[in-house]
Amino acid sequence: MLENQIYEQLSNLKSKTPLVEAITNYVTINDCANILLSIGASPAMCESADEAYDFTKLANAVYLNIGTLTKEQELAMLQAVKAADELNIPVILDPVGCAAIPRRIGFIDKLRSFGKVDIIKGNLGEIKSLAGVETKVRGVDSLDKGEDGVEVCQQLAKDWKCIVAASGKIDIITDGEITALVHNGDDMLTKVTGSGCMLGALTAGFCGANTDNLLASCIASFLSMGIAGEHAAQHNRGCYPGSFRVFLIDEIYKLTDTILRDKSKIEFV
Amino acid sequence: MLENQIYEQLSNLKSKTPLVEAITNYVTINDCANILLSIGASPAMCESADEAYDFTKLANAVYLNIGTLTKEQELAMLQAVKAADELNIPVILDPVGCAAIPRRIGFIDKLRSFGKVDIIKGNLGEIKSLAGVETKVRGVDSLDKGEDGVEVCQQLAKDWKCIVAASGKIDIITDGEITALVHNGDDMLTKVTGSGCMLGALTAGFCGANTDNLLASCIASFLSMGIAGEHAAQHNRGCYPGSFRVFLIDEIYKLTDTILRDKSKIEFV
Amino acid sequence: MLENQIYEQLSNLKSKTPLVEAITNYVTINDCANILLSIGASPAMCESADEAYDFTKLANAVYLNIGTLTKEQELAMLQAVKAADELNIPVILDPVGCAAIPRRIGFIDKLRSFGKVDIIKGNLGEIKSLAGVETKVRGVDSLDKGEDGVEVCQQLAKDWKCIVAASGKIDIITDGEITALVHNGDDMLTKVTGSGCMLGALTAGFCGANTDNLLASCIASFLSMGIAGEHAAQHNRGCYPGSFRVFLIDEIYKLTDTILRDKSKIEFV
Repeated sequence: MLENQIYEQLSNLKSKTPLVEAITNYVTINDCANILLSIGASPAMCESADEAYDFTKLANAVYLNIGTLTKEQELAMLQAVKAADELNIPVILDPVGCAAIPRRIGFIDKLRSFGKVDIIKGNLGEIKSLAGVETKVRGVDSLDKGEDGVEVCQQLAKDWKCIVAASGKIDIITDGEITALVHNGDDMLTKVTGSGCMLGALTAGFCGANTDNLLASCIASFLSMGIAGEHAAQHNRGCYPGSFRVFLIDEIYKLTDTILRDKSKIEFV
Repeated sequence: MLENQIYEQLSNLKSKTPLVEAITNYVTINDCANILLSIGASPAMCESADEAYDFTKLANAVYLNIGTLTKEQELAMLQAVKAADELNIPVILDPVGCAAIPRRIGFIDKLRSFGKVDIIKGNLGEIKSLAGVETKVRGVDSLDKGEDGVEVCQQLAKDWKCIVAASGKIDIITDGEITALVHNGDDMLTKVTGSGCMLGALTAGFCGANTDNLLASCIASFLSMGIAGEHAAQHNRGCYPGSFRVFLIDEIYKLTDTILRDKSKIEFV
Repeated sequence: MLENQIYEQLSNLKSKTPLVEAITNYVTINDCANILLSIGASPAMCESADEAYDFTKLANAVYLNIGTLTKEQELAMLQAVKAADELNIPVILDPVGCAAIPRRIGFIDKLRSFGKVDIIKGNLGEIKSLAGVETKVRGVDSLDKGEDGVEVCQQLAKDWKCIVAASGKIDIITDGEITALVHNGDDMLTKVTGSGCMLGALTAGFCGANTDNLLASCIASFLSMGIAGEHAAQHNRGCYPGSFRVFLIDEIYKLTDTILRDKSKIEFV
C-alpha cells in the first residue's frame, strides 16, 4: 500500500510543479535549484528576513539547510517556519554541520519553537547528535559506522513527532512506526559537494506535491537520488566527479515512476 | 541601420573586454560570471556596502539582480546605482520575483530614486507587475500568456524612460519607440536555473562595450542567448539539463557576428 | 630534497583527508568545495561570525578569499585567523580584488593583526598592490606583464615573513629564500571563473595535510592545478569553457604523485 504510493509520487510531482521555498547554504544553492527544476518542481530562494514570511505562504514546501548559517538566514528561517506552521506547509530541515558545531543544535531548538518541522534529513552523524547520541564526524561529513542507526532514527522520530531520514550507504527513513531502508545509491555521490543538499531539496519538492503522505514523498526522493546516482555513475565518464555531477542532473530529469519501481531496492524493517 | 549595428556588437564587446560590476543573486552568481567570461567580458561581483560605490566607478556597466535580496545587497545596490548615475555608466536591472514579492517593487522605486536605470530586463510577469498590470506567476516564473506584452513593455518604457526587455517564448525589447521581437531560443533554457540571470548579465556585458546604443546592445544580448540556447540543445545530450547547461556556455563562447546575423530571427513591430 | 618532498604531497593529502575551513566568495564557493573533494580533502564553509572561531579549531587548514567581502564574512575571517593562530593552523589568504579596491588592503592589515597568515596567494596585480608596487588591473584580473614579479614576491615574503605565491602565465612561489617558478598551466584556465579561487582552496588542502613543509605543499598545489588544466584542455571539447570546467574537476581527481612528477615544469631561481 505505502509501496504503491511511493511509485506514484514522481508523476504526481511533475503534474503539479510544486513551488519550493529554499533557504539554503551558498555552497550548493545552485545545485539545489537545478535539481528541483530537473525533477519538475519550481525552486525559489527567497531569504531576505523582510520577505521570507510572506513568500513562504505562497510555497508548497519549505527546504531549510543550515550549511552556511548567516545572521540574515537565521532570521529568514525563523519567519519561514512560522509562516509554514500557520498554513500547514511541509518543512524539511537539513541540520548540516550540527554534529561539529554545537551552536546549531540550539538554533534548531529555536526553529522548532517557531513552528513544526515535518522532516529532519541529515547524515547519520547529524541525526545522532540531534538525538544526543555519541557519534563521529569530520566537519560536515559523518564517519559513523551506523550499527544503531535505525534505533536512533526511530527514537528521534518518536520524540520529535516527525519523519527522520538519514542518508548514508544505506538510507534510513522512518516516522517512528514504519521504517524503510533504501539500498540504492553510488559511492560517486560522496565525491561531489551537495548531494546531501540536493537530496533535501528533492524531498521538499516531493512533499510539496503531496502533503498528505510525507513518508511516501520522502522515500520517493531518496529513491530518486539513489537511482539517478547509479545511472550517472554508469556513464562512460561517470567515474569522474566533474562529469558525474552533470550526468546526475541529466538522470534526475529522465526518471519516471516505472524506472523508480524497477530499480528500487527498498526494505521495510 | 539599427539592425546592422546589432551585428557589430559582439566583435565590439570582444575587442573591449568590458568590466561588469554585478550584484546578483547567490543561486546563479557563478553562472553569471562564467557566461560573461565566455562572451568576452570581465565580471566582478563587488557587493560589500562599503565598496560598491567606489568599485562601480571603475566598471563599464552594472548588472543588478534582486533574486536573493539580502540587507547588505540592498545597500550595495543603492550605492552602485548612485555611482553609475554620476558617471553615466549603464545600469541593467533584473527585477526577479517582484511579481510574487510586492516589497521588491518598493525597493525598485527606491533604487530608481538613487539614480537612473537604463534597462529593465525581466520575464513578462515581472514587467507587468512593474507596470501595474495584472499577471500570473509561480514564484519567480511567469505563467503569463502575454497577448498584451508588447503594449505593456512599450508603455513602461515610455513611463520610465528606459529600455524594457521581457524574456519569454518570444522576447520583447523596446525603448518605447522601436520594438524588436526575438524569436530565437529553445525550451531547454527553461529547464536550467539562471538562464534569465545569465541573459541579464550578458546584456550588461554588451552595454558596457557600447554605451552609445543600448538598444542595439540589448537586442544583441537576447540574440546571443537565444542562438546559443538553440545550438546547445542540438548537441547529442543537449536535451538533458545538466549537459545542456555545459553546452550553453560552450556555445556562447563560439558565437561570432556572422553567426548572430545568420541565425537571428528578429522582427521589428 | 624539496623537489622530492613536492611529489609526495598528493598521496599524503589523500591519505589524510584534511578538513579545510573555507570562508570564500559566493561566486566560486561551489567550485572550491568540489575541487577540494576531487583532490581528496574535506571542505567546510562555516562563515557565521558566531561559529567561525570554534569551527576553525577543528580544521587542518583555513582558506580565506575576500572576493565578495560581506560584513559577516569580515567578522568571521577575523575570528578564523585568531583561532588558527592559537592552534598554529595554516592560513592561506587570497587577496582578491585588493588592487582595484584599496579598502581591502586595510582589511588585510587588520586580518594580519588578528593572527598570522602563512601563505598569500594572488595574481601578480594583487601581490604587487600588497607590496606597494604600481601595477595594472581590470577589476579582479591582473594586466601586469610581470617582469619584476620574482623580486616583488621575494620582497613581500621577507617583509611579511610568509610564503608568497603569484599565479600567472608563469607562477611564482617563494618564501623569500627559495623561489620556484611553475611553467605548467593552460590559457583555458583564464576562461572560467574561479580557477584562482580553486587553486587557493587546493593550496589549503595540501597545507592541511602537511603543516611541516608549507612551501612544498604550496608548490604541489600549483603543479596540480597547472597539470590538470593542461589535461583538461586536451579533451575533445576542452577548448570550450563550459566543458573545460567539467574536465578540470575530473583531471584533478585523476592526479597522482607520479603524474605530477612526470609532467611538472618547475624551475628554481
